[in-house]
Amino acid sequence: MKFTIDRQTLVAGLNTVSTSIDSKTTIPILNGIKLTLTTEGLYLTGSNGEISIEWFIPSTDNKAKMIIQETGALVLPAGFFSSIVKSLPDAMVTVETTSDSQVTITSGTSIFNLNYLNASDYPQLPVVEQNNLLQMPVQLLNELIKETTFAASRQETRPILTGVHFTFANGEFKAVATDSHRLSQRILPMEEGLKEFDMVIPAKSLLDLAKSFQNDSEFVEISSMENQVLFKTPRMSFYSRLLEGNYPNTDRLIPESYETSATFNVRELLSSVERASLMAHETANINLVRLHLNEDEITLTSQSPEIGNVEETLTPIQYEGRDLTIAFNPDYMKAALKAFKGEEVRIQFISPVRPFTLIPEESDQNIVQLITPVRTN
Amino acid sequence: MKFTIDRQTLVAGLNTVSTSIDSKTTIPILNGIKLTLTTEGLYLTGSNGEISIEWFIPSTDNKAKMIIQETGALVLPAGFFSSIVKSLPDAMVTVETTSDSQVTITSGTSIFNLNYLNASDYPQLPVVEQNNLLQMPVQLLNELIKETTFAASRQETRPILTGVHFTFANGEFKAVATDSHRLSQRILPMEEGLKEFDMVIPAKSLLDLAKSFQNDSEFVEISSMENQVLFKTPRMSFYSRLLEGNYPNTDRLIPESYETSATFNVRELLSSVERASLMAHETANINLVRLHLNEDEITLTSQSPEIGNVEETLTPIQYEGRDLTIAFNPDYMKAALKAFKGEEVRIQFISPVRPFTLIPEESDQNIVQLITPVRTN
Repeated sequence: MKFTIDRQTLVAGLNTVSTSIDSKTTIPILNGIKLTLTTEGLYLTGSNGEISIEWFIPSTDNKAKMIIQETGALVLPAGFFSSIVKSLPDAMVTVETTSDSQVTITSGTSIFNLNYLNASDYPQLPVVEQNNLLQMPVQLLNELIKETTFAASRQETRPILTGVHFTFANGEFKAVATDSHRLSQRILPMEEGLKEFDMVIPAKSLLDLAKSFQNDSEFVEISSMENQVLFKTPRMSFYSRLLEGNYPNTDRLIPESYETSATFNVRELLSSVERASLMAHETANINLVRLHLNEDEITLTSQSPEIGNVEETLTPIQYEGRDLTIAFNPDYMKAALKAFKGEEVRIQFISPVRPFTLIPEESDQNIVQLITPVRTN
Repeated sequence: MKFTIDRQTLVAGLNTVSTSIDSKTTIPILNGIKLTLTTEGLYLTGSNGEISIEWFIPSTDNKAKMIIQETGALVLPAGFFSSIVKSLPDAMVTVETTSDSQVTITSGTSIFNLNYLNASDYPQLPVVEQNNLLQMPVQLLNELIKETTFAASRQETRPILTGVHFTFANGEFKAVATDSHRLSQRILPMEEGLKEFDMVIPAKSLLDLAKSFQNDSEFVEISSMENQVLFKTPRMSFYSRLLEGNYPNTDRLIPESYETSATFNVRELLSSVERASLMAHETANINLVRLHLNEDEITLTSQSPEIGNVEETLTPIQYEGRDLTIAFNPDYMKAALKAFKGEEVRIQFISPVRPFTLIPEESDQNIVQLITPVRTN
């Protein structure tokens, strides 16, 4: 193998692939990054067993200024190789195998000789036939990931809840996540004619995917096969394991009626909840705030006998319905509000013991969030 | 106590004083920040037993827009009070005692009631008579802290070496730190007539001091008494405990002759050492690089049988003397070079087993650094 490449282009590829590499892996070869050089260009591959990323730099890429002198494949220690390439002095870097165990990396006045591992020892990537179940702009998928993953469970007691449920049926694509205390759902109307599907993708994989995208304006194609899903952009193939099992039916959880409704400015409400949560967090074991709604005044309170109390007066944009006092975990409310990109949120309540919903006022109700209150007496 | 103040001015004071507060303290009252309101202004006091900081906001401060309605003193939980003040919605904040155990903090639509502790339970600050041993611009003291503290020991086996030795004698102020593997010394010529002194200030206190300065263009006065030192600026009194014991005589460690001398661009040399140290760090238990000096070529190398090797070719600005190969810990060299603000550094060697010196080419030799090599055979 011998090639010369623009250093920054290689760094960008290494950064993306590094997302899939877990330096604490117990499988030594997965500490490595696989370089595969063909006449078409350079493939960089990384994997942690859960996700795998393949990044491609085509020989025709103008910015890469690649000179391919000898094709080949090998595996280099991922973290170390990335650190070296990032710190090299020159704009260009040359990588060349100089013996059957060593590769030489040259840039300016620096020469590194590194032992490599054989590419043939690197595990095969999952085989996912590209069946293009769905295609959407990277930016939209990123939004959807931000809007749902935070509501997935972080606990392994019910593994299926650590994922985000992606379904397509009746012309609607739906992504939903819940940890059984709160829920977040986004629906996208889609063109007819797509195949129906139903899969549960680990939330962590989706967060890694969002980190790996380099270009928001590209399109991403989603394919799946057996227990794998493939997200493909022009430069990247991102594979993730799917979670096995049946995702609970979440549709029945979302209330269709309400008794009290209040609309707030998202930013103002978030600031008030953040301040009230300061007090709630100071109180050992009890992390809750109370929202008091009536026509004259809406307040958010939190108290701790040892420390003190806080009262935030809220100004609703719109308010209707019955008086109500409801207690909840402020962290759920903070996370829900941070996931909204709109300016106004409508919150609808049934009773102090029933989950309440948050809906962005602007976006045609494609997003709905649900928070279960805390029963306080 | 009752006063109203510009929130950002209060935040700045709380940030400074917070440097002295250790949230893991076992003395509950030291988790607090003392507020003392007089007709002159507001004093904020924090302490961790090792250092204490008093910050003063005078009633005449235009930016503070203080309204003092009732003087008094009390202690509030430091971290919590700071978080509250930082997150309040309005530009102004009012603090008022509303009972003999509670204080009310109001800003815009937010009302916090906090339990407070009595100011009379807060420990007294050390008494240091202002004897103004030394006065210098904050910026110069900051430089001196950056140039010396990194060389102090982090190990408690010889506690005196965890400090920086400040002395004034014969018209020279000298600051020196060593962990017995490397040394850094800065000398400032001073006006005549100052009293001689000799004290060892914990390096950690000096780093906290550097963090606490808010205005580089002010002057700082240094006073000391028994086992305490006081750094005073117009707004801040910063107290630190001194280390007890005799600091070793470091003058005899600094070589006065050399056999080989090479001058480098600081930035280029630092980059090369950083790259070579990547390889050195990958090698378990042995963290060293080798510098090979001869008239034809100067190279820096590091190798590891399992991983590979690196060779960096250096271009000296000036070179003279005998050929030499010397091994050292690259982390010491990195720290030394980062402490220089100049562009060029002269390195002088005697032999592979004798400490070598680094001197900035530009600044009249007021700074000298010393690194002990590693004997490799």
